[in-house]
Amino acid sequence: MTAEPLLMHLENNVYLEGEDALIVIDRRKLPRTRAEVYCTDHLEVARAIEQMMVQGAGDIAITAGYGLYLAAREAERQRGGRDMAFLKHAADRLCATRPTGFHLAILLGKLLERIRREPDGRASAIILAAIQKSLARQREISQTTGRQAETLLSPGDVVLTHCFAGAGLLYMFRYARENGKEIKALCTETRPYLQGARLTAWSLSEMGIDTTLITDNMAAWCMCRGMTDKVFAAADRIAMDGSAANKVGTLQLAICARRFDIPFYILGYGGPDRRTLRGGDIPIEERDPREVLEFQGAPISGERVKAYYPAFDVTPPELITGIVTVRGVFSPAGIADG
Amino acid sequence: MTAEPLLMHLENNVYLEGEDALIVIDRRKLPRTRAEVYCTDHLEVARAIEQMMVQGAGDIAITAGYGLYLAAREAERQRGGRDMAFLKHAADRLCATRPTGFHLAILLGKLLERIRREPDGRASAIILAAIQKSLARQREISQTTGRQAETLLSPGDVVLTHCFAGAGLLYMFRYARENGKEIKALCTETRPYLQGARLTAWSLSEMGIDTTLITDNMAAWCMCRGMTDKVFAAADRIAMDGSAANKVGTLQLAICARRFDIPFYILGYGGPDRRTLRGGDIPIEERDPREVLEFQGAPISGERVKAYYPAFDVTPPELITGIVTVRGVFSPAGIADG
Repeated sequence: MTAEPLLMHLENNVYLEGEDALIVIDRRKLPRTRAEVYCTDHLEVARAIEQMMVQGAGDIAITAGYGLYLAAREAERQRGGRDMAFLKHAADRLCATRPTGFHLAILLGKLLERIRREPDGRASAIILAAIQKSLARQREISQTTGRQAETLLSPGDVVLTHCFAGAGLLYMFRYARENGKEIKALCTETRPYLQGARLTAWSLSEMGIDTTLITDNMAAWCMCRGMTDKVFAAADRIAMDGSAANKVGTLQLAICARRFDIPFYILGYGGPDRRTLRGGDIPIEERDPREVLEFQGAPISGERVKAYYPAFDVTPPELITGIVTVRGVFSPAGIADG
Repeated sequence: MTAEPLLMHLENNVYLEGEDALIVIDRRKLPRTRAEVYCTDHLEVARAIEQMMVQGAGDIAITAGYGLYLAAREAERQRGGRDMAFLKHAADRLCATRPTGFHLAILLGKLLERIRREPDGRASAIILAAIQKSLARQREISQTTGRQAETLLSPGDVVLTHCFAGAGLLYMFRYARENGKEIKALCTETRPYLQGARLTAWSLSEMGIDTTLITDNMAAWCMCRGMTDKVFAAADRIAMDGSAANKVGTLQLAICARRFDIPFYILGYGGPDRRTLRGGDIPIEERDPREVLEFQGAPISGERVKAYYPAFDVTPPELITGIVTVRGVFSPAGIADG
């Protein structure tokens, strides 16, 4: 039997308790600890996003949507109705949390627009209904993307993956098994936050997939030794030129995959950001260097050492074999249709 | 003023106390803790080497030499003189600790040979005299290699380095400063043991070098962004075809450096192992997978997750710009002269 990993459904780890609190399971503590973080206003939600208690561009967007919902509730409780200036302010704060993914700005913009279009509705109810729709749509996109990606797999493949590539990756493995293909997983641990070790490897192993963890610097050697058949990573933003921004480390996997003639795929879910023309136009978030100088709070280097922490990198189209979206598998050059 | 980093001289961190104990500063705990580990026989020395309290092929060899010295002392105390069978047995045990570097087997073989050639000498005294010579020779090799490597640097260069490339790297930076070249360092943290963070970045920063730490998965992005002018790594063994085995992760740095047209150099110190013809002939040590599944003793993934821990990888000659040895800078094809 296949267990359902916690991270397969966002509803399991980001959800309302009552009408005025959002609970976020802190992903930085998984899988050892299931820490429920209570957010009672949009500022706490913004901090939870910034601190990476939730990750993945789609999940971040919906979590921010809940933040806007809490802001709407706050206005309704304190001022008896909607307060567009406050909502706009809250949306700006939530939008500023993580610049690289584009789903965040799109969903928040859509929510504000929907409220404006229904001047007589209760803002919180309008937001909640829209979030429910987004959740259902996101699940459908993950399932369909997983189904499309599964067609790229051959029995016996070992799939190398980086960071946590979202529910679509889990569905890909599930559908492969349903189709009788035995696929193994090789997961990079993904420093500094270890999403590959803590989220991906854990989720896949809970599904009963044969899962092997490596440190980020072992990937090329695993390719060289014939231990990798395909690479799958996600993207926080795909530009119209077919470039993909994803968790830092994706670029070097793509470069090494090319060296060893290993297909490199991007799980592109809903498709590219139509307003971003080139990879160079994607803003790359740089995070606090202390997160590199410490491991789980303990310093790992000398006191005079500086650090650099780009959270993402951009893989150019020529290194990408295919981008898998809800609409099929596209070449980077053809992603405008994807 | 330039401080002398602890790791510049092996005498500072592996040394005898009295005649019957070897003290090893546990490098896994640096720089936060200066833990002195007492080894009173060759078995304890072997375990210290296996547990990576000391690292780097040359330093491992000399530490093992001290292990053989302790075995000789043991025989002299207990049996009043030399016991060649026991010494041979101790050398085998010490030699089996780490298979990838070749200096270990060479030094131990040389020590046994020297004892055999002086049937009337005290074995422990013969070994100690040979170790003193090796230490002096190793320092001379590090200094000369550092001086050769320094000629490859241009003012303003940012040097990316991986793991701890030995004292030669520190001398390279020192000589560059003496020659008025301002060189900055970019250090990969080097999982799972973080030698880059704990040893290299610390040592260079203590020397007053501008030093920036990154996680292993950020290297390609730093190259892509123009933040890297040259890459320098060491080698635990260089084959006669110009391949270089070094800490896992070196291969992917070389692949990425090639992609971005960044020179990639190996600090080759004493030169190639003349008995190893091809890179494929180098035995690659695989270590306990638990070291990947845990960080400083705490598990980082799920209970059903497996792991793989190759400690080294092999970079092929076509990715190496030059190999710097005590005799000069050689192309991989010309390393037979190096």
